[in-house]
Amino acid sequence: MRYHPGLFIPGPTNVPNEVRMAMNLPMEDMRSPDFPKLTLPLFADLKKVFKTETGQPFIYPSSGTGGWEAVLSNTLNPGDKVLISTFGQFSLLWADMCQRLGFDTQVVEVEWGEGVPVETFHDILKADTEHKIRAVLTTQNETATGVTSDIGGVRKAMDAAGHPALLFVDGVSSVGSIDFRMDEWGVDGIVSGSQKGFMLPTGLAIICVSQKALEAHKSSKMGRCFFSFEDMARMNKDGYFPYTPATTLLRGLRASLDLMFEEGLENIFARHHHVASGVRAAVEAWNGCRLVAAAPKWHSDTVSAIYVPAGVDAVRVIRHAYDRYHTSFGSGLNKLGGKVFRIGHLGAMNELMLLGAISVAEMALVDCGAKIELGSGVAAAQGVYTTRRNSLAQAA
Amino acid sequence: MRYHPGLFIPGPTNVPNEVRMAMNLPMEDMRSPDFPKLTLPLFADLKKVFKTETGQPFIYPSSGTGGWEAVLSNTLNPGDKVLISTFGQFSLLWADMCQRLGFDTQVVEVEWGEGVPVETFHDILKADTEHKIRAVLTTQNETATGVTSDIGGVRKAMDAAGHPALLFVDGVSSVGSIDFRMDEWGVDGIVSGSQKGFMLPTGLAIICVSQKALEAHKSSKMGRCFFSFEDMARMNKDGYFPYTPATTLLRGLRASLDLMFEEGLENIFARHHHVASGVRAAVEAWNGCRLVAAAPKWHSDTVSAIYVPAGVDAVRVIRHAYDRYHTSFGSGLNKLGGKVFRIGHLGAMNELMLLGAISVAEMALVDCGAKIELGSGVAAAQGVYTTRRNSLAQAA
Amino acid sequence: MRYHPGLFIPGPTNVPNEVRMAMNLPMEDMRSPDFPKLTLPLFADLKKVFKTETGQPFIYPSSGTGGWEAVLSNTLNPGDKVLISTFGQFSLLWADMCQRLGFDTQVVEVEWGEGVPVETFHDILKADTEHKIRAVLTTQNETATGVTSDIGGVRKAMDAAGHPALLFVDGVSSVGSIDFRMDEWGVDGIVSGSQKGFMLPTGLAIICVSQKALEAHKSSKMGRCFFSFEDMARMNKDGYFPYTPATTLLRGLRASLDLMFEEGLENIFARHHHVASGVRAAVEAWNGCRLVAAAPKWHSDTVSAIYVPAGVDAVRVIRHAYDRYHTSFGSGLNKLGGKVFRIGHLGAMNELMLLGAISVAEMALVDCGAKIELGSGVAAAQGVYTTRRNSLAQAA
Amino acid sequence: MRYHPGLFIPGPTNVPNEVRMAMNLPMEDMRSPDFPKLTLPLFADLKKVFKTETGQPFIYPSSGTGGWEAVLSNTLNPGDKVLISTFGQFSLLWADMCQRLGFDTQVVEVEWGEGVPVETFHDILKADTEHKIRAVLTTQNETATGVTSDIGGVRKAMDAAGHPALLFVDGVSSVGSIDFRMDEWGVDGIVSGSQKGFMLPTGLAIICVSQKALEAHKSSKMGRCFFSFEDMARMNKDGYFPYTPATTLLRGLRASLDLMFEEGLENIFARHHHVASGVRAAVEAWNGCRLVAAAPKWHSDTVSAIYVPAGVDAVRVIRHAYDRYHTSFGSGLNKLGGKVFRIGHLGAMNELMLLGAISVAEMALVDCGAKIELGSGVAAAQGVYTTRRNSLAQAA
Repeated sequence: MRYHPGLFIPGPTNVPNEVRMAMNLPMEDMRSPDFPKLTLPLFADLKKVFKTETGQPFIYPSSGTGGWEAVLSNTLNPGDKVLISTFGQFSLLWADMCQRLGFDTQVVEVEWGEGVPVETFHDILKADTEHKIRAVLTTQNETATGVTSDIGGVRKAMDAAGHPALLFVDGVSSVGSIDFRMDEWGVDGIVSGSQKGFMLPTGLAIICVSQKALEAHKSSKMGRCFFSFEDMARMNKDGYFPYTPATTLLRGLRASLDLMFEEGLENIFARHHHVASGVRAAVEAWNGCRLVAAAPKWHSDTVSAIYVPAGVDAVRVIRHAYDRYHTSFGSGLNKLGGKVFRIGHLGAMNELMLLGAISVAEMALVDCGAKIELGSGVAAAQGVYTTRRNSLAQAA
Repeated sequence: MRYHPGLFIPGPTNVPNEVRMAMNLPMEDMRSPDFPKLTLPLFADLKKVFKTETGQPFIYPSSGTGGWEAVLSNTLNPGDKVLISTFGQFSLLWADMCQRLGFDTQVVEVEWGEGVPVETFHDILKADTEHKIRAVLTTQNETATGVTSDIGGVRKAMDAAGHPALLFVDGVSSVGSIDFRMDEWGVDGIVSGSQKGFMLPTGLAIICVSQKALEAHKSSKMGRCFFSFEDMARMNKDGYFPYTPATTLLRGLRASLDLMFEEGLENIFARHHHVASGVRAAVEAWNGCRLVAAAPKWHSDTVSAIYVPAGVDAVRVIRHAYDRYHTSFGSGLNKLGGKVFRIGHLGAMNELMLLGAISVAEMALVDCGAKIELGSGVAAAQGVYTTRRNSLAQAA
Repeated sequence: MRYHPGLFIPGPTNVPNEVRMAMNLPMEDMRSPDFPKLTLPLFADLKKVFKTETGQPFIYPSSGTGGWEAVLSNTLNPGDKVLISTFGQFSLLWADMCQRLGFDTQVVEVEWGEGVPVETFHDILKADTEHKIRAVLTTQNETATGVTSDIGGVRKAMDAAGHPALLFVDGVSSVGSIDFRMDEWGVDGIVSGSQKGFMLPTGLAIICVSQKALEAHKSSKMGRCFFSFEDMARMNKDGYFPYTPATTLLRGLRASLDLMFEEGLENIFARHHHVASGVRAAVEAWNGCRLVAAAPKWHSDTVSAIYVPAGVDAVRVIRHAYDRYHTSFGSGLNKLGGKVFRIGHLGAMNELMLLGAISVAEMALVDCGAKIELGSGVAAAQGVYTTRRNSLAQAA
Repeated sequence: MRYHPGLFIPGPTNVPNEVRMAMNLPMEDMRSPDFPKLTLPLFADLKKVFKTETGQPFIYPSSGTGGWEAVLSNTLNPGDKVLISTFGQFSLLWADMCQRLGFDTQVVEVEWGEGVPVETFHDILKADTEHKIRAVLTTQNETATGVTSDIGGVRKAMDAAGHPALLFVDGVSSVGSIDFRMDEWGVDGIVSGSQKGFMLPTGLAIICVSQKALEAHKSSKMGRCFFSFEDMARMNKDGYFPYTPATTLLRGLRASLDLMFEEGLENIFARHHHVASGVRAAVEAWNGCRLVAAAPKWHSDTVSAIYVPAGVDAVRVIRHAYDRYHTSFGSGLNKLGGKVFRIGHLGAMNELMLLGAISVAEMALVDCGAKIELGSGVAAAQGVYTTRRNSLAQAA
């Protein structure tokens, strides 16, 4: 059999069948009178996902990287000071983008395995009495390490410091899977993509910005067209786009949002926590393995980055799982290369799928030399799934 | 999430993505000059699957039941004597059909858990010196009990008895998954369906008959049109059909056969044996459970029927797996109702999928009162999969 | 380009995209507790399509031919007398089936181009004072000639003759496209297929029978299993089937019925009449061409069979349209071979599509030697479409 | 019926079924060892489409607008002088982008209906003895007016003027449909999108740049990340991408390129010329209508922009065709609004489809008050299609 390998990477995630059906359609005229019947409700519904009343969502045919650039290049100017912390490949890349876009980038390096250093941020912001820092950049979920940060805490720190900077959040691997509250947390720009919690194919950057960010946009002079808020906002108002949008993905987004609202956002978050807990129990049961996330407060409900036992080559484990067991796991990125493999457990994911993945991970680890008892991780995950199931059922 | 439940029933089986892609197409003219370019190679390739040089395949928009009826009603006459053994719901139904079609049906009842009683058949045939028995009916794989019979042995018994009866085989849940040798075993009619080893949606009866069966057809006087060999053969010769065929499924069959030949029939059989061995190891490890198949020689590589522990309700286990864990298992049929659940492991099936299924079965059993250690069955299956893997890889 | 040729045959018809989307799904367990949620409403909704309160629909994985056999073999016995008229290839085949199934078949041969001879039927029935005729068989729409018959008229003739025979109707190319009224017309068995007005791929026989037919079923002794009403009825009651149904097509049928009810049956019939009128206007404008249908009362709204001008080879016209213009037309069947081509205009069909087809037919005729003015037929059809459009819009 | 309207806009174009099938697949790991087996041949094959040996293609999840920005922002610096001519909405927008990106933009305004003013460009370039002009921007096919320009002529003019500027081409609605020769014409950057000649859904910018452009890239200091050549080139080398690519569209691109090479590029161009000639004949036959393209040398083989007769509102014509006849035409953009409608005839397009579209356009024009004879345009197009067919067949 040529199997489509089991997909347990932290994105792209598995596309639910309803979404796949919805995208199986002919092309349509993006300037037709019917098109806004699709798009206007999409904009309204995205606001519900971001938990905002006043924010404005934008959808670009692009990627999460494009979303980062859209938020930054529409609201800042070269030379502007930004504050960011790095603790994994994706926060590193965002910081790198800041430098390449010409911002005065203050980087707080954090141990990989931890997340946004809320107190350090507070102190830096407090010390910035001239308010030179124009934007604070945070990563709600660092996909490379499986670390979730406390964005509400960052907001509190900013408020405590009385600092007016914009607050930008990379929510690529959290939005739609882990609770995110744009208005409550005073977020000015949130970046997500189609291929994670939205359970769509890759190809869309889905962002949302606050009125404060739109105000900042007016004095931003960075040359930009494709990502321009202004062009988008002018056309989106009536349900159209300044250039040809990815209509197929928009049809898929409709199906995806329908599924999300049918399940309920809070139930989705509970489900992600539930399935992630099983994976974490398995990791704990695996002799010699441990999570990269340094403490429970950093545990990510969407991806687990796992140190393999000393002497085992994580690259070989991943390759072996792929070649022999038709299963895709994520690799260790940057300095985690060879030491870490990752299990993505976000989007359309359930116990059946993850128990298969945990079983395969176990076999691949053993095949590659780990001294792990077969079945040990699975049994631990099953324990979680059978005992936690009832509370989840009640929530649902 | 509205999940499409994990499908571990003994058919319909999971449709590989290549097949699903191939069926995602507009309707076509089944009388177009291009149509035979599709159909003629299908007929030729089906002969390879049935391992016959001289047999003639027929494809009906129908089901396995229709296939049974096609073989019988085209070759026999009311009042003809047929010999059949029953040891599960599907052999029972076929025997019942014989009676309803008006044949003089000699039924040998066999303990459920065993298969075709080769020696008994031999004795009966030997005793039938007048050769009143016109056809011997066998079930290569009894889907209800997970029992595989020795069709080659039946042929030997018939030869030893010097009996000229036709040999018909129900291969619905074996063809394409378990070795079947039409010419070598002297089979006169083999019945299969699209939705098992062929990994297609339901909707086709795929049968193959010998020249001897076609000869018998000439003196068959049972009123029939839809299933008529004659009408089919006349049109099939040029790649057409006597009535509108299920063109979408024929396109899928092309993709399916391509996948099968790419993997190789012998490799497919080895893979089925490999994954089935893991399931059987799990059953053995489950305290209080056992296979319905009464001895290793009856073990089916396509479906395992499993007695749940005393005091556990198999119906509840199945329902619980479906409702709570989004997993479909087969139920116990007829007198196995409530005592048995079935795991289908045929078609597009691999270790990842089955380890998930075994894990869920384990949880569902425990949730419903079985005293089984979580992880015990999974570990046993993993043991099989890691140690047997290499020999399989060599075969591939 | 490898085009999927434009499909203008009288079935299979073009599958609407919504239906194609709905069938793009994984296999499911036809014994799951959720399955009846799909099937029970299907049965209820089919009754609306057949316009019956008391009839019982059956869905077989089969074809129209299978549907014919199901109706006959479940309600009659060999030797029973049936009355049928023949005026085209499909009524011929149905009559032929009657003979092969062993009925005493009284055939009234009618000029091809005309339909069911209501008065002759009346006279025959009246003369049958012993009521030996058990069933009257009629073809509502003869697909080979494009002739629609008056089924309500047949009922009146039967009533006038005071004859208790069963009334069976072949509605394969009429149901869902041309008005059919099961209860009002006292029809006892109506046969249709998935691939015509239901706009699905081929693969289903969809029939409906009256309580009177079900009563007759009790004394029918024809050996049958696959098509058995009894087995079906027993399982259908709870939403299940006696053998594996074609689940993919059932999912498609749901989508198709949704589309049909959204448009409204009467609007569908009006649309078919509208688009057919344009085709007929084109034929009239084509020098030397004429419809096979001998008079307006026989005009079919689903298919037009068209005599090509003398000296032109219809086979060549059809082949040329296919090879050069990527367009499939239907051929002349039986004695119409070489003289006739057919344009199917049923199912998901509109003016845009048909104007393309008429244009191509015109070019193909001219290319093959017809003395027809290019544009003449198209202009005539356009005239119909622009002037008739308003009344249709009102109806909608 | 809810029809998916006939799509006759100049992009997105109709997706061939093979491409649609190819995109109907689960998500995959874009970092898997198998992924380069897909991507590396794509890069090689795109070079064939662009007719370049030395150019380097890039694929962005984006749109044509993104492609414009990618080419400009990777090779130039703010303040650089660029030369561009405007003669339609899309050349206008590209010039506008140049200004917004901070270039010193010399705009040559040309009458709409004409194309790139080769001689004027020559004179300007010749006069630019200091070679301040860093880039010459041209639009091979102005989608708004249906005007094709002579890019080879621009190259000759640049050479005659001995000018070293970069030559950039907007080929969004020409590449893959109208001949384009990157190497022969010395093009340094060509921009296209997935949704036109590549017959894919919207969502990709597909560009190709020369080694000279890559050299210029080294001294370009415009802040950019998402569109960075450098990041792309570094990862593309091994078949990967710097961020998640739109894998579904890449799978579709494979199928699309296969179709294109199967037909042959030169045959594709001939087909486009053939079908376009029919549309132009129809326009000529329509009383009071004329092409926007001012002379045959400007005629576009991918889109025809058509002035409606005086007194007729083009907006109403388009809306009427959409509402009543389920057909999408393109609208008049900018100053052509209300006066012009456009028929897109690129991509997967044939005579059958276009004759339907011409018929509908004719009806819509008449319904909205034009004094046009029904059938007149269709007959003219048919005349072209029947007489030109043979030469095309020979070419194919």
